[in-house]
Amino acid sequence: MGKTDWKDEAKALKKKLSKLKARTKAEKPEARTAGAKLVSPLAPASFPTLPAIGGVEFSAVEAGVRYQNRKDVMLIRLAPGTSMAGVFTRSSTRAACVLDCQAKIGKVSEAGAAIIVNSGNSNAFTGAVGVEAVEAVTGGVAEALGLPVERVFSSSTGVIGEPLPYERITAQIPALVEGLSGDAIEMAARAMMTTDTFPKGACAVVEGEGGPIQIAGIAKGSGMIAPDMATMLVYIFTDAKISQPLLQKMLSRQVEATFNAITVDSDTSTSDALLLAATGTSPAAELNGRSKAGRDFEAALGRVMLDLAHQVVRDGEGATKFVEIRVTGAEGPEDAHRVAMAIANSPLVKTAIAGEDPNWGRIVMAVGKSGAVADRDRLSIRFGDILVAEKGWRSPDYREEDGAAYMKQSDLVIAVDLGLGTGSRTVWTCDLTHRYIDINADYRS
Amino acid sequence: MGKTDWKDEAKALKKKLSKLKARTKAEKPEARTAGAKLVSPLAPASFPTLPAIGGVEFSAVEAGVRYQNRKDVMLIRLAPGTSMAGVFTRSSTRAACVLDCQAKIGKVSEAGAAIIVNSGNSNAFTGAVGVEAVEAVTGGVAEALGLPVERVFSSSTGVIGEPLPYERITAQIPALVEGLSGDAIEMAARAMMTTDTFPKGACAVVEGEGGPIQIAGIAKGSGMIAPDMATMLVYIFTDAKISQPLLQKMLSRQVEATFNAITVDSDTSTSDALLLAATGTSPAAELNGRSKAGRDFEAALGRVMLDLAHQVVRDGEGATKFVEIRVTGAEGPEDAHRVAMAIANSPLVKTAIAGEDPNWGRIVMAVGKSGAVADRDRLSIRFGDILVAEKGWRSPDYREEDGAAYMKQSDLVIAVDLGLGTGSRTVWTCDLTHRYIDINADYRS
Repeated sequence: MGKTDWKDEAKALKKKLSKLKARTKAEKPEARTAGAKLVSPLAPASFPTLPAIGGVEFSAVEAGVRYQNRKDVMLIRLAPGTSMAGVFTRSSTRAACVLDCQAKIGKVSEAGAAIIVNSGNSNAFTGAVGVEAVEAVTGGVAEALGLPVERVFSSSTGVIGEPLPYERITAQIPALVEGLSGDAIEMAARAMMTTDTFPKGACAVVEGEGGPIQIAGIAKGSGMIAPDMATMLVYIFTDAKISQPLLQKMLSRQVEATFNAITVDSDTSTSDALLLAATGTSPAAELNGRSKAGRDFEAALGRVMLDLAHQVVRDGEGATKFVEIRVTGAEGPEDAHRVAMAIANSPLVKTAIAGEDPNWGRIVMAVGKSGAVADRDRLSIRFGDILVAEKGWRSPDYREEDGAAYMKQSDLVIAVDLGLGTGSRTVWTCDLTHRYIDINADYRS
Repeated sequence: MGKTDWKDEAKALKKKLSKLKARTKAEKPEARTAGAKLVSPLAPASFPTLPAIGGVEFSAVEAGVRYQNRKDVMLIRLAPGTSMAGVFTRSSTRAACVLDCQAKIGKVSEAGAAIIVNSGNSNAFTGAVGVEAVEAVTGGVAEALGLPVERVFSSSTGVIGEPLPYERITAQIPALVEGLSGDAIEMAARAMMTTDTFPKGACAVVEGEGGPIQIAGIAKGSGMIAPDMATMLVYIFTDAKISQPLLQKMLSRQVEATFNAITVDSDTSTSDALLLAATGTSPAAELNGRSKAGRDFEAALGRVMLDLAHQVVRDGEGATKFVEIRVTGAEGPEDAHRVAMAIANSPLVKTAIAGEDPNWGRIVMAVGKSGAVADRDRLSIRFGDILVAEKGWRSPDYREEDGAAYMKQSDLVIAVDLGLGTGSRTVWTCDLTHRYIDINADYRS
């Protein structure tokens, strides 16, 4: 068969394919609901079994905010005495619910608390009506549960710029309250999914003074997706007895090496929120920052956060590779972070990984553009255990076929040593594939 | 036909297609040469007619550095008395030839000068042998043309990390010198192409005191491409009489709003270089910075630079849309630049443009993540003349079908007013398409 024959056939096939695609889509009215999506090849085998946390109850209902035939609003009730901590997006165009959470989070209170989350509409960039919606929803929950409104937190995730039909949510508050149960955490994780291909959960247990302390968390997020802004939402619960200021301090400390060390496409949502609730129902004594139990608790919290953060990357839009970028030998930690993020966000690095191409030249390029202090001739680059480049050039022992074989794995480690100082940083990212373009470009509302 | 049948057939077709693709590639040994590439849909109709500049000669030969059956090395000779100015990549992992140019550029000299450029190998990240290659090539040209080596500049563009086979270049120096001619500028523009789909040229003429002053320039660059780092190389020539310091000052000033205001994929080459040569052969009097002729000259230089910069974006890898991002109303120029670049580099904005989706929510997102001071409720967004969003929400007059119709154009203007101050900035970018992934991922060396 000649060259042109192949081309012609390929062309015809392509046309056929795109027609097929269009038809398949037309036949799938459920394609807009999260259930119809393929599961990421990097997803864990199943949702983990999470422990019930004393003082935490969940429920979820179908409110029809945007999606049909699935639960799309979830409610969490937290027992009196719960300490609440939180971290939020740094975007200067934050959604109304984020601003509301930020205003409420620092306040210490002995009352119970609640969190209400809807998917399908992010209530972002909706002006004054956005604020009205937050007040209606949090006010409704406060009244139904007998809580001060300052203790009711809300998140919204989904399409932006559309007024949130909040009556659909407030109408379901009685049913939500009715359904509250201590072991419905997976249902809650599923109700907040938008373009996620799997629900995300993680847990840990720590030996406290006088008994065990449990931690369980759920997350949603997978980059950002048309027409939604794929908000990252994270809710973590523990039965630890701990003061609000200490809880907040530990959370803020742990966020740097976990949720602030992941990137899918360098874009930042207007709605990211992480809430951490400590109910104090554990038999263990109250934690303080200097005790062994306190340090163990913070470390376990960090592990749960890292686990959830990794799951978000594993659900990155179109991801087929989970990539750890380890930077060492930088002049300081800021430079290490800059280099790691420059590599993790480089479209050229990410497309090379998608193509299973050990293209170390693009790593050199990303180091160079990062703005960090770097010396070409002190740089070394490793793919896993394979030394690829050192002293300003390809390593004499490096064989391209070794690099190519390594890149075929689904989990990769790219290590860069700058050879200058002791600054180090590890971040996680995924590859940039055709499917990312499919998800984000091949769409018309 | 049922849903699953279609799916199965599509799957089978996809497999067939990928096999076909692999075969078609194997049958195309010429696929690695620039000639085999499709021309960008955004390319100008033809290469412009550029004026001959007194004191500037060009030649190009087939040296077989990497490509076969095409010219891949070009030489430029500049008359004695030429002032040389330059700007270079800020990458901290710059190639040897860039470091060499930077060391030479500031020196004032009455001798002639030369520029030698090869495509196919960038001589980047090649350690000590890279420096040796630069010395051999520039030394060879200096000897052949009777010039001090400090007046011979070189650039290399192409694959990185491979030693430059410089003997293939030095062997061609006699033929290059032999072929020098005043009207071979297009041939020179073609010889430095790597993944460019068209050669780039631009010109201007200015009324000097006592006669006209001509400016002509050529450029290459189209983002970055496997296995090459698509270096941006620009050479501009003028017959103006002008001192080296003044020429450098004008060039540095004009680069901000031209070459520093374009982005294809946010990645930065290790080899970018722009050289500006003023031969002084014009009958016009010597320029100074305060005269009308001096100001006119600088403005014309800026226009030539902007024209070439736009052509680089129009040749962006996989580009189907040429996008102007206009930011106004920022607190200051830095904030305006930050917002403009955040929009121009956002994968979500760029994929939405590829999908002809008037997704203004992603513009809000990019403003929010830029780090610039912004107030959601003062922000306004326009697509062309269409007011899309204002006062923290979608404009009441905006109709989605107007936005969708606008996005179908190949040249787009996205205007963002922050409503805070007088800082403004305009930058240019292109969309992010499947073809970008094809070019950068679907490859194995």
